Amino acid sequence: MKTAILTVGTEILFGQIVNTNAAWISQQLQNMGYDVMYHYSVGDNPGRLKELIDFAFHDCDLIITTGGLGPTQDDLTKEVIAEAMGDVIVENKECMDYLVNHIRKHGYALTPNNLKQAYMPSRATVLPNDAGSAPGFALEKDGKRIIAMPGPPREMTRMFDLQVRPLLESLQDSVIYYRLIRTFGLGESVMETMLLPLIDGQTDPTLATYAKEGECSLRIASKRATKEEAIEAVDEIEKKVREIIGDYIYSNNDEDLINVVGKLLLEKNITISCAESCTGGKLAAALCEIPGISKVFERGIVTYSNRAKMEELGVKAGTLEKHGAVSPETAEEMVRGLAAKTGSDLCISITGIAGPDGGTEEKPVGLSYIGISYKGEVKVVKNQRKSSGGRKWTQNAALLAMLYQIYCLIK
Amino acid sequence: MKTAILTVGTEILFGQIVNTNAAWISQQLQNMGYDVMYHYSVGDNPGRLKELIDFAFHDCDLIITTGGLGPTQDDLTKEVIAEAMGDVIVENKECMDYLVNHIRKHGYALTPNNLKQAYMPSRATVLPNDAGSAPGFALEKDGKRIIAMPGPPREMTRMFDLQVRPLLESLQDSVIYYRLIRTFGLGESVMETMLLPLIDGQTDPTLATYAKEGECSLRIASKRATKEEAIEAVDEIEKKVREIIGDYIYSNNDEDLINVVGKLLLEKNITISCAESCTGGKLAAALCEIPGISKVFERGIVTYSNRAKMEELGVKAGTLEKHGAVSPETAEEMVRGLAAKTGSDLCISITGIAGPDGGTEEKPVGLSYIGISYKGEVKVVKNQRKSSGGRKWTQNAALLAMLYQIYCLIK
Repeated sequence: MKTAILTVGTEILFGQIVNTNAAWISQQLQNMGYDVMYHYSVGDNPGRLKELIDFAFHDCDLIITTGGLGPTQDDLTKEVIAEAMGDVIVENKECMDYLVNHIRKHGYALTPNNLKQAYMPSRATVLPNDAGSAPGFALEKDGKRIIAMPGPPREMTRMFDLQVRPLLESLQDSVIYYRLIRTFGLGESVMETMLLPLIDGQTDPTLATYAKEGECSLRIASKRATKEEAIEAVDEIEKKVREIIGDYIYSNNDEDLINVVGKLLLEKNITISCAESCTGGKLAAALCEIPGISKVFERGIVTYSNRAKMEELGVKAGTLEKHGAVSPETAEEMVRGLAAKTGSDLCISITGIAGPDGGTEEKPVGLSYIGISYKGEVKVVKNQRKSSGGRKWTQNAALLAMLYQIYCLIK
Repeated sequence: MKTAILTVGTEILFGQIVNTNAAWISQQLQNMGYDVMYHYSVGDNPGRLKELIDFAFHDCDLIITTGGLGPTQDDLTKEVIAEAMGDVIVENKECMDYLVNHIRKHGYALTPNNLKQAYMPSRATVLPNDAGSAPGFALEKDGKRIIAMPGPPREMTRMFDLQVRPLLESLQDSVIYYRLIRTFGLGESVMETMLLPLIDGQTDPTLATYAKEGECSLRIASKRATKEEAIEAVDEIEKKVREIIGDYIYSNNDEDLINVVGKLLLEKNITISCAESCTGGKLAAALCEIPGISKVFERGIVTYSNRAKMEELGVKAGTLEKHGAVSPETAEEMVRGLAAKTGSDLCISITGIAGPDGGTEEKPVGLSYIGISYKGEVKVVKNQRKSSGGRKWTQNAALLAMLYQIYCLIK
C-alpha cells in the first residue's frame, strides 16, 4: 500500500529536532511490505497541513502522522484531519475517562487545555497511549486512511508497536516475515563479500546488510502467502548464513548486545562487577537499565583518577608510572583488585583513551585495554577502534567491545 | 522568503538513514530569516519529484534540494529540475574541467556515467563542490528559485557554507532571531498556563512551549528588519518570562543540563564524585562524556547491592535494616561516606526505586532520595516522579533531578 509519512511540528522545520520518527516508521513499514512514497513535515498550520493531506491522497492510500496531538493551542492535527476526512470533533468518553485517570495518576492539575485531548473525530478508532496523555486515532474514508500518533518518540513507538502494527498487518494480503541477525566484529563490506554467494540470485528470501554504530546487521526477509511458509524460508537461509558467519552472530531477533548479555547473566546467575575508566560508567549504566539486574550486578566503580584506581582497586603507583593508566598492566591490576574486593563471578575492567585529547602516536584515541576475570582466569584484551566519531562514539564502541567479551565467555 | 527543503533518496524513505540534512539546512535558514514551510523527501523517481516541485512552488519561492546529483542512473534530480524550470541540460565546460581534474586528482577511471556530472541546466549558476565530484547549482525562473546540492552531509554543508549562504544572504530583507529557554521541573501545560498572559495577543516576539523527556522548553522568536532589533525584542520578553518562571530556567541558549553542569564544574574547578544506586552509573557516564571532565571528576561508585553500600560507603547495616536501602537515611550515609573517602568538593548520592518491580504503596517506583554534600553541608532531597515511561525513563528522570540539584548549588 502506498504510504506517506507526515510529521507535524514547527520544531522540525526550525531544525531544532531531527526527524527520527519518519525514519523509524519507514523501517517498520518497509518490514511489513508497505511502500513509503513520501516524507512530509509541516508546522502547526491548519491550512498547509490540510493541503498536504489532500496532496498525499492523490498518490497514497495511507497517511501516517506524528505530532500535533498535545494539549496546547498550536496542536491542531486532530482538527485538520477530521476536516480533511469529512468528520467532526466530538467529546469522546473513552478518551475523557483515560485523561481524567491519567491526570489523577500523575498528580497533575487538570488545566482547561488538557480537556482538548478528550475530543476526537466522531468516526475515529481511538489508539490508547499508555506512555503519555495524548491518544492517537485511525480514521478512514472511501478507502483512504489516516493514522495519527503523538510526536514524542517514546510514546509514538510504543503506540505503533501495540496498536498500529497489528492494524496495518490486518490490512495486508500477503505476509512479510523478517529476521534481523545482529553481529559484532564484522564490517559491512566484509560481511557482504562473505555472503555474496547467498545474496546473489536470491529473490526470496532477500538478504540485506546494514551498518550500525560499531556493528553490522543482516536482514533476512520473505514474502509469502502465510507466515508459516515465510518463517520456513527464512529458517532455511539462516542456517546457511550461520555456516558462513556464525561466529560473529549474537542475536537473531534484533536484540541489543546489552540485553543478550543481561539475560545470560540472569539466566546463568553469574554475578558481575565492573571497574571503568574511559567508558566512565557506561557499562554499569547499561547493565542497570535491565530490569531485575540487581540479582547479579554487585557493584561498579568508575575509577577516573589515578588516585581512585589505586585506592579502589589497588593498582600500584609503580604500574601507573611505568606503563601509564592506559596499559594492559593497569587493566589487569584493575580487574584483579576488583575481583579480590567483590568476589563476583565475573569482573571486568577497562582503561583507554576516549579523546578528543590525550592521544599519542603510540596510544591513539580509541585504544583501550579490557581486563576480565572469570572462573579464576584473568586475561587482558586490546581493543582498538579508528575513531572519527568523537568521544561519545569512542566510549560507546569500547562499551560494545566489553559486552562482546562478556558474551563470548558466558554464552 | 517561503522555503521548502526537498531531500531526494530512496534510502531516506526506507529509513536506512535519518534525514539530518533537512534539520541542518533548516537551522541555517532559520538563522538567516528564511521561513521554512515544508520538508519533503521523495525517492529517485522523476514523476513524483516533478509533482513535488510544482506543489512546493504553489506556496514557496525557494526550494532547496539535496541528493540525486550523483553519477548513477537513478540520480535524476538535475534533469527533473531543468524540466520543471523550463530549461534543458547541456554540457557545461566549467563542470567538465572540474570533473576531469577531480578524477585525475583522485586516480579514478573516467566512466561514461561520470560524464553525467559535467552536464547542467543551460541557465544554471554552478555551485562548485570542493569535497566531492557532484557540483550543485542554482536556477531561477519568474522569481522562483531552486538550489540543488549533493546529498552527502560533508559535501552539502561545505557547499552551503561557501556558496549557498552568501547567495541567500544577498536575497533577504528581514532577520529572525530566536532563543531557546530550557527549564526543569515544569510540565508543558503548567508552563503554558503560567505564561498565557504573555503568549496571548503576542504577535512578535512569539512564544512556544516544547515538551522534551522530563523537561520543557520555551522558544522566543522575533522577526525584525535587523538582528539588533530582533535581539532587543527577545531580551525584553525574556525578562518578563523570567519574572514568572525564572526559578525553573537553567539555560537560555538551548544547552543540555548535563553540559551546563559540566561547564560550571570545570569553570569553577569544583571536584565531584558520585555514588549511585538506582541510576546505576548514569550520572558518572553522563559527566564522563564531557571532554576534559577528568580535571574535576574524581570517581563514581555504583553501589547496587547493600553489601557494596556498606563496604564502599560505610552505610550501616542497621540503617539498611531499619529504614531500607531506599531512604533518606541511606542516601545521607552514602554521601557522607563518599565525601569522607574522596574529599571531593561536591559529593552526590542517589538511592531509589527504578522499577518496574520493587515498588510498594509507601515507596513507589519513581521515588528516590538524593544526598548532597557541598562546602561542609549535607542535605537530602526527596525526588518523586510518577513514572509511566519504564525503568530507563525513571532512571533518566532521576539523573536530571541529580543534575538539577547540582546546578542549583553551584550556579
